[in-house]
Amino acid sequence: MTAQTPPSKGTRLDPWFGSYAQRAHNMRASEVRALFAVANRPEVVSLAGGMPNLNDLPMDIISKTVSDVVLHEGLVALQYGSGQGHERLREHILDVMRLEGISAHPDDVVVTTGSQQALDLVTRIFIDPGDVIVAEAPSYVGALSVFRSYEADVAHVPLDAHGLIPAALEETLTRLEREGRRAKFLYTIPNFHNPAGVTISLERRHEIIEICQRHGLLIVEDNPYGLLGFDGTTHPAMRSFDEDGIIYLGSFSKTFAPGFRIGWAVAPHAVREKLVLAAESAILCPSHASQLAISAYLEQCDWQGQIAEFRTMYKGRRDAMISALSEHLPDASWNVPDGGFYTWVKLPPGLDAKSMLPRAVTGRVAYVPGTAFYYDGTGADHMRLSFCYPTEDNIREGVRRLAHVVSQERDAVELFGTSPQLDDVTDVDAPGPDIA
Amino acid sequence: MTAQTPPSKGTRLDPWFGSYAQRAHNMRASEVRALFAVANRPEVVSLAGGMPNLNDLPMDIISKTVSDVVLHEGLVALQYGSGQGHERLREHILDVMRLEGISAHPDDVVVTTGSQQALDLVTRIFIDPGDVIVAEAPSYVGALSVFRSYEADVAHVPLDAHGLIPAALEETLTRLEREGRRAKFLYTIPNFHNPAGVTISLERRHEIIEICQRHGLLIVEDNPYGLLGFDGTTHPAMRSFDEDGIIYLGSFSKTFAPGFRIGWAVAPHAVREKLVLAAESAILCPSHASQLAISAYLEQCDWQGQIAEFRTMYKGRRDAMISALSEHLPDASWNVPDGGFYTWVKLPPGLDAKSMLPRAVTGRVAYVPGTAFYYDGTGADHMRLSFCYPTEDNIREGVRRLAHVVSQERDAVELFGTSPQLDDVTDVDAPGPDIA
Repeated sequence: MTAQTPPSKGTRLDPWFGSYAQRAHNMRASEVRALFAVANRPEVVSLAGGMPNLNDLPMDIISKTVSDVVLHEGLVALQYGSGQGHERLREHILDVMRLEGISAHPDDVVVTTGSQQALDLVTRIFIDPGDVIVAEAPSYVGALSVFRSYEADVAHVPLDAHGLIPAALEETLTRLEREGRRAKFLYTIPNFHNPAGVTISLERRHEIIEICQRHGLLIVEDNPYGLLGFDGTTHPAMRSFDEDGIIYLGSFSKTFAPGFRIGWAVAPHAVREKLVLAAESAILCPSHASQLAISAYLEQCDWQGQIAEFRTMYKGRRDAMISALSEHLPDASWNVPDGGFYTWVKLPPGLDAKSMLPRAVTGRVAYVPGTAFYYDGTGADHMRLSFCYPTEDNIREGVRRLAHVVSQERDAVELFGTSPQLDDVTDVDAPGPDIA
Repeated sequence: MTAQTPPSKGTRLDPWFGSYAQRAHNMRASEVRALFAVANRPEVVSLAGGMPNLNDLPMDIISKTVSDVVLHEGLVALQYGSGQGHERLREHILDVMRLEGISAHPDDVVVTTGSQQALDLVTRIFIDPGDVIVAEAPSYVGALSVFRSYEADVAHVPLDAHGLIPAALEETLTRLEREGRRAKFLYTIPNFHNPAGVTISLERRHEIIEICQRHGLLIVEDNPYGLLGFDGTTHPAMRSFDEDGIIYLGSFSKTFAPGFRIGWAVAPHAVREKLVLAAESAILCPSHASQLAISAYLEQCDWQGQIAEFRTMYKGRRDAMISALSEHLPDASWNVPDGGFYTWVKLPPGLDAKSMLPRAVTGRVAYVPGTAFYYDGTGADHMRLSFCYPTEDNIREGVRRLAHVVSQERDAVELFGTSPQLDDVTDVDAPGPDIA
């Protein structure tokens, strides 16, 4: 034990540096992350963030429902509640999941502080340091951050236009077993993947479940975007095919609003019990005020009509993104997502999305470099472009600026043979609400 | 890796039992906990819970402020926010803490999902399995649950009527050093302690800080009840005497309402950075809706007047508790708390609060046995009685029933020589909102 030497005021020395847990040494604010403080300036078009567009929400009606909740149910809404979540909301969540073919009981549902917390709790109850989590390549930056904070290893499995590739999953699991390594679960985003934008085909869903059952591997199915298919298609959840082997994570953040921080997990019975105990230890209980506000919204507003409006609006933005890419960045390649928030863009050869980012921000456009979505920091040849928050005009302007940055970058690469590197850039270690 | 064998429907077998992390094996629902499901029935007077009494809150005004927040700031209130918390609320939090002599900058504050989450995050960044946390004996059940979930050891230090005993702290730290064990922080509740009801004297605060500085030990000061002193006294926070060695935890749950789940931490700069990264990994960001609702409440309502009303109301309930104890349980002993929610009662010799609990619940009264507040499950000669939630009449009736149960228990002890034991009772492992 070293004696405490308080730093002089204003210095950045950390007298507690020697006291941190092992896991905390993985928590660093990266330089990429620091750039997003700049990227949030109004003159920058941010194609980086995962914030939904809330302009179409009926604020007057929501205001009234929230007001009524406090006025008529204040003693409940403002009080502590159950660690598992309010039963009324858990019933409503069943209605939402029924759209994806899920049949469950309110007892199976655990309400969480956004589905991010569900991810944290699942990882908490399953992962010892060194355990392996299998995830798509690329995968959600916020999940990778959770996995890192629990000192997991991640085995990435490639995806293609039809989602996670079953043969590659089989190969990875077989290799892990041969190496004597312990995989604890498969983490997957089957619908409108973040960041890749792809959806796992129905045939593959069955194959993946069969492979995981055969290998004794739990599946964590993360589905924040499932109801945001642009042609109105709702794919059946993997959970609808297997109750005992899948933990399903849902969220109101993209289909209603993230500001209440309400998501949920559906888990096999014994796992659900552990999740509730872990949740109580972490936060005692989720916000009653938020839960009753969302319950009232679901009861009094046309939430399905609202989701249909969202779909149309996001489809328009997706179209603006794709046509702008075709016009301004013909040498890059990308997928055309059928739903969700993101396009996954492969840069022309020789370019590095991470080292280019500071110059993009200088050029008043921001994106998330592909490196954020790989546990090992590879993926610099890709970037994620979001079309959820900026208007169609801003999307077009952002892609135009991006094309200009890319063009300058190519000239530099041709001249110097390589793209100038950011010094000692670490990966995006914490997702940050800006880019999740 | 064992192959998954799905259980037949309706069984409680857990096919994932072999997959849990080491820490999850400490997460068990105890039998004591199960009793609280019964204790919540209306015919039972619960002196167990830590729920505040919200009847005096001006629900009409709060309803209006919440409604205005959504109507006029909906696009912010319903959106993702900063992982550290909204700046407006962090400014207000400075006003609250100024009452306790704390001078800080908004940058020092991290808004959390209740102060329970702050506890979780602090433990997450500092504790490796086997690390030692020093805490009062007894200590807050919800903190012990967090510490257990991170596989910490807890070294209890006794307290008396003037709070944590400095000489005992010195002795414990010296012993730990001699044993080569690594203590990471002192966890203390200086004001109106949960469960002991005592307050650390001013002189001792300085002594404790000096001891911890000398031993290089961080202090985690948990202060949910500090503004609820019955004679209006507000004790200066330990954080007001030391900025670099103390993490301060605050909460709106007891001075306003727990339903928004908003607490906060104030930490030295580098620690605060880690806390924000850990928070983003855990939940992305705290609820904007909750934060703006509380900001509006603090701006538009007489929150200090409301706290003064709470003090008077809780003082009345404390008085009811103490006079009922004097009348009905003269052979027990207890402290007379100057604030907060709890009385710590020592039972007459030979009685065991844990084994007596099922019979108390049958006798339509509930409490929390002292064992919940010790890491090693000792403390069965004590019980915590809460006077926060039940009315004065119910408190008197509850103590009357409790006295009847105690009387029967003493007869049984005299007859059989020992109190009948609960079979294989585990400790209260998760706090549960019912008893926190």
